Amino acid sequence: MAGRVVTKVARADAAVIDGLARLGVATVHEAQGRIGLLAPHMRPIYPGARIAGSAVTISAPPGDNWMLHVAIEQLQAGDILVLAPTSPCSDGYFGDLLATSAQARGCRGLVIDAGVRDVRDLTEMGFPVWSKAVFAQGTVKATLGDVNVPIVCAGAAIEAGDVIVADDDGVCVVRRTDAASVLEKGLAREANEASKRERLAAGELGLDIYDMRGKLEAMGLRYE
Amino acid sequence: MAGRVVTKVARADAAVIDGLARLGVATVHEAQGRIGLLAPHMRPIYPGARIAGSAVTISAPPGDNWMLHVAIEQLQAGDILVLAPTSPCSDGYFGDLLATSAQARGCRGLVIDAGVRDVRDLTEMGFPVWSKAVFAQGTVKATLGDVNVPIVCAGAAIEAGDVIVADDDGVCVVRRTDAASVLEKGLAREANEASKRERLAAGELGLDIYDMRGKLEAMGLRYE
Amino acid sequence: MAGRVVTKVARADAAVIDGLARLGVATVHEAQGRIGLLAPHMRPIYPGARIAGSAVTISAPPGDNWMLHVAIEQLQAGDILVLAPTSPCSDGYFGDLLATSAQARGCRGLVIDAGVRDVRDLTEMGFPVWSKAVFAQGTVKATLGDVNVPIVCAGAAIEAGDVIVADDDGVCVVRRTDAASVLEKGLAREANEASKRERLAAGELGLDIYDMRGKLEAMGLRYE
Amino acid sequence: MAGRVVTKVARADAAVIDGLARLGVATVHEAQGRIGLLAPHMRPIYPGARIAGSAVTISAPPGDNWMLHVAIEQLQAGDILVLAPTSPCSDGYFGDLLATSAQARGCRGLVIDAGVRDVRDLTEMGFPVWSKAVFAQGTVKATLGDVNVPIVCAGAAIEAGDVIVADDDGVCVVRRTDAASVLEKGLAREANEASKRERLAAGELGLDIYDMRGKLEAMGLRYE
Amino acid sequence: MAGRVVTKVARADAAVIDGLARLGVATVHEAQGRIGLLAPHMRPIYPGARIAGSAVTISAPPGDNWMLHVAIEQLQAGDILVLAPTSPCSDGYFGDLLATSAQARGCRGLVIDAGVRDVRDLTEMGFPVWSKAVFAQGTVKATLGDVNVPIVCAGAAIEAGDVIVADDDGVCVVRRTDAASVLEKGLAREANEASKRERLAAGELGLDIYDMRGKLEAMGLRYE
Amino acid sequence: MAGRVVTKVARADAAVIDGLARLGVATVHEAQGRIGLLAPHMRPIYPGARIAGSAVTISAPPGDNWMLHVAIEQLQAGDILVLAPTSPCSDGYFGDLLATSAQARGCRGLVIDAGVRDVRDLTEMGFPVWSKAVFAQGTVKATLGDVNVPIVCAGAAIEAGDVIVADDDGVCVVRRTDAASVLEKGLAREANEASKRERLAAGELGLDIYDMRGKLEAMGLRYE
Repeated sequence: MAGRVVTKVARADAAVIDGLARLGVATVHEAQGRIGLLAPHMRPIYPGARIAGSAVTISAPPGDNWMLHVAIEQLQAGDILVLAPTSPCSDGYFGDLLATSAQARGCRGLVIDAGVRDVRDLTEMGFPVWSKAVFAQGTVKATLGDVNVPIVCAGAAIEAGDVIVADDDGVCVVRRTDAASVLEKGLAREANEASKRERLAAGELGLDIYDMRGKLEAMGLRYE
Repeated sequence: MAGRVVTKVARADAAVIDGLARLGVATVHEAQGRIGLLAPHMRPIYPGARIAGSAVTISAPPGDNWMLHVAIEQLQAGDILVLAPTSPCSDGYFGDLLATSAQARGCRGLVIDAGVRDVRDLTEMGFPVWSKAVFAQGTVKATLGDVNVPIVCAGAAIEAGDVIVADDDGVCVVRRTDAASVLEKGLAREANEASKRERLAAGELGLDIYDMRGKLEAMGLRYE
Repeated sequence: MAGRVVTKVARADAAVIDGLARLGVATVHEAQGRIGLLAPHMRPIYPGARIAGSAVTISAPPGDNWMLHVAIEQLQAGDILVLAPTSPCSDGYFGDLLATSAQARGCRGLVIDAGVRDVRDLTEMGFPVWSKAVFAQGTVKATLGDVNVPIVCAGAAIEAGDVIVADDDGVCVVRRTDAASVLEKGLAREANEASKRERLAAGELGLDIYDMRGKLEAMGLRYE
Repeated sequence: MAGRVVTKVARADAAVIDGLARLGVATVHEAQGRIGLLAPHMRPIYPGARIAGSAVTISAPPGDNWMLHVAIEQLQAGDILVLAPTSPCSDGYFGDLLATSAQARGCRGLVIDAGVRDVRDLTEMGFPVWSKAVFAQGTVKATLGDVNVPIVCAGAAIEAGDVIVADDDGVCVVRRTDAASVLEKGLAREANEASKRERLAAGELGLDIYDMRGKLEAMGLRYE
Repeated sequence: MAGRVVTKVARADAAVIDGLARLGVATVHEAQGRIGLLAPHMRPIYPGARIAGSAVTISAPPGDNWMLHVAIEQLQAGDILVLAPTSPCSDGYFGDLLATSAQARGCRGLVIDAGVRDVRDLTEMGFPVWSKAVFAQGTVKATLGDVNVPIVCAGAAIEAGDVIVADDDGVCVVRRTDAASVLEKGLAREANEASKRERLAAGELGLDIYDMRGKLEAMGLRYE
Repeated sequence: MAGRVVTKVARADAAVIDGLARLGVATVHEAQGRIGLLAPHMRPIYPGARIAGSAVTISAPPGDNWMLHVAIEQLQAGDILVLAPTSPCSDGYFGDLLATSAQARGCRGLVIDAGVRDVRDLTEMGFPVWSKAVFAQGTVKATLGDVNVPIVCAGAAIEAGDVIVADDDGVCVVRRTDAASVLEKGLAREANEASKRERLAAGELGLDIYDMRGKLEAMGLRYE
């Protein structure tokens, strides 16, 4: 039965989290073996934000945003709110007042598989949101949900304290205990890509850089 | 049978309409008891517009924009065109020529549960549109529809002369006869929110400001 | 069976292609008789781009971007990559490394009925993409597809060397052999529209400019 | 504010309602001038049902089916329950217990722009439902809605007492005061179609029966 | 410009067409190298039909079914009507009267990337339809389209005289000139599958029958 | 990195599993506190099946069904295959040959957040499938996935050995270790519902049976 708030949540190292933010979603996703992405319907309300933080998870009934108030008390500086409704919902759970409160506690953003509103205010405040919908539909405060329990948000399993990375490409979750090693792999990947980028910019072909011609021929590729 | 144009349409007071525009969609929607929103698939073609105006309604066949020409003659300064196709359609009913004509007559924007095109031109002209799709698909002028009759647009029942409020959060309709009282409630709500925003920005919690702790405990919320 | 790369592809005249870009999608689509549009789910990753170029077509398996490397070798300056997956797919086939390579060879953009990633980088590079999704999901390089064969992309039949026109309104294909005559008709249309626009801006009604009143009355339109 | 139950609702004549059921959705829709259809996502849970009845309307919060209990008390024999959620929702508002209760009071079926569950039981009971989804997701009873107020259900404006016609083609609403004249037109249409059907079955062409050849030629149709 | 009717259309051999029907969609699709499928939103109005026939193609404006009457005159016994609207549309272009006419001329069914109505009558008549929607929405007869021209229907390019195969799995197109060789390959495939089916039914594993274990191990599969 | 097959999987007690099947999805879902449902797009390929079994989970690349062969070897009598693609995919991963093999090993059905084909054969075999799509599109065998690892399928987190319950209402997952207690609660619920059903069938109202009138009045419900 709903109604649980887990108050003790381990977080990843702050420097690791900030490193993951700098790498961005696509690199982090590749570095951890192409897992952890939320579904492509999760889009930012404005372009250009790139954040990472520790998940404070929320499981909420459809059309009921009560648990957001409960969750905000659990926020630590650098956290990200992550809300999954218990059934599909587009309502606007979150607007400028909640954002003001979350921002006051150091929250870096919201990831919500539902709707958000007051997006002009949120944009002016620099409070980024990744959501399924923008919808002014109000919610009630009548039924309990859970805070900091494991959830599935937009197709990804997320636990409280997992690292959320979000930018213009979407949203990715990294297990808290994998964060340091994913960062390491991501940095290596980035270094490797930098040299590739230079060669590609100079006109070399991926076919040659990655030595693909032989394998393609063996697979039966034919030029006509 | 289609083919009606209602020419006498009562409008709400201009100052009331402008007041509703300033409040914006989310506040207006809350102020009138959480009703009147159009579906969340209605999105603006560019960010930042915030308008209100009196609806000139159009019921149009799929892929046929003839009635837009008829409707433009019915426009008064400050009006908003609101088009619902008689069956689901994504065609581009409206582009820069129609926008030029509408703007020349003082029209403030278009709300259309179908497609729109020439969006770069419309953006440069500052003519805002909320639509289901951006699609260059052309339309014909072969079959009659209706102007200024009651329609259902994106799930909302709208009558000619109702007030349409639209911004980055979407579109809301206010009954013409409710407009003044909704504005009053909206202004009260806004005033109330301003003081809440200050307290939240200072770090107070919604749990305390709204006195929720007792009720949550009574409902069975448990901290672990 | 897949695995064909057609290396000899006729292109339209460069000046004609550039002329079509200036006209834009809506005008080109009208000028060629309202055909050739790709489906409205094909959206630009950033606003404001307006390009035309010769299609280098790619038919690729779902979640497999190997053929993009093969296609890039076939690019000539002024070309546009056009990718259709062999079954519906949202994966991110294309990111900043491939864009660097394509841009180095003079490619003007990508049209893809699937996903794209690194959209912030692509935006900074000024490499425009029209896609079905933004999604960081990585792809493999395991199965052959085809390059420069006829494809159906987002509902439109496209052959290598056809002219692709893309802007904020979406994407349109013009048969290579029709390109010159479509340009001519488009220019005529544009000239005609300019004068219409002036009259409409001055407050004349489409009802009068297009002489619609008689036909509407004959069809049974009635003013109440 | 929600919380209204209108108890006095005028109904159409029972014989007229039953006549509309016999005509079916497509004929009724044509007979009243191609208006009144609910959106095509409204599908029957089993094939073969064809009903008509007076609408008992319900406006319900997302994920909250409390008002169904209130509405069932308002049912008269021959009525149909019609539920529209106040924001998009797929939850299973209705199952075999509510169907048992509704059926006991003479209810002929349910039209719901949301979800339904226990569909095997409902099929065995012969209680037809047209819905947006089949989904076992339970609902709460925490927030008020309205009964027998005007609603918009799946894109159609419906008032309590309007006649609902539903079959394998979907759902159509007929204004209560139009029911008799729509029945008359529908019967005329049916008679006319019977003779057409015979001629078509005998191999005559619609081109000749409807005398289309001249008009098609005038429009420019050319045979090659 | 629209308005063309091509009257001379080559068809594939009748025995080949009937052979393809017996193979069914999945086998035909595999036999021709996994190409030719229409999109998965194309669903039969009733289960159990399995047909093949020569395509009589129709390109029709949204919400306008005039060309169906023109196309029916072009039908030969064993043909299948294939309609693609020129822009996305769910209207019910086709019902029991048109089906009566088509059936009288030997038509085997309809494939339509739009809506259909009178589905109970069509089911009783045994006239199968694969469509995007069931929707009673009526259409007009006001604008020309084309008959027997190349179309793109539900993502597949189709020419008049191509062989259409349709069953519970969906719809597949086979180029007219490939039909005989696809049948041959399909029969071989079927024979091969029969022996596989027996071995699998006896409990042998695909891992062994297809000799996959070595390759899986080489790719790095590990049992834990 | 993908490529893991977990071979030791604990299952729930067979009698408990069969008891859950008899209860069905809606009752099981309620009995465990309204959790565990897969998304409503998961629909059975034919009506009437009602099964429960232990999950053998599969994480598979888009358009690649290799891991199904691997998974079938891991099946025990009474199991259900549960496949989640690593990115959204509609391809037909599974047809009559794989079903023959799975059925030979005692598999009770398939739950797949992707496509399935040969549905007529599967129906005749009595092999039930719940899927996102019916689509004949073939797949390759080129890339590894995982078997019996935790997956997210259609929005629900599922581990190998969890109990899957599926019927006409959809699909629900029950944690293996909760199965016995959920069965117990479900049986109690069923018993309670039986008496409610009788009273409702006799015409008593839910308003009275559940004693709702006082609370509704307190909430402000008003009869007009």
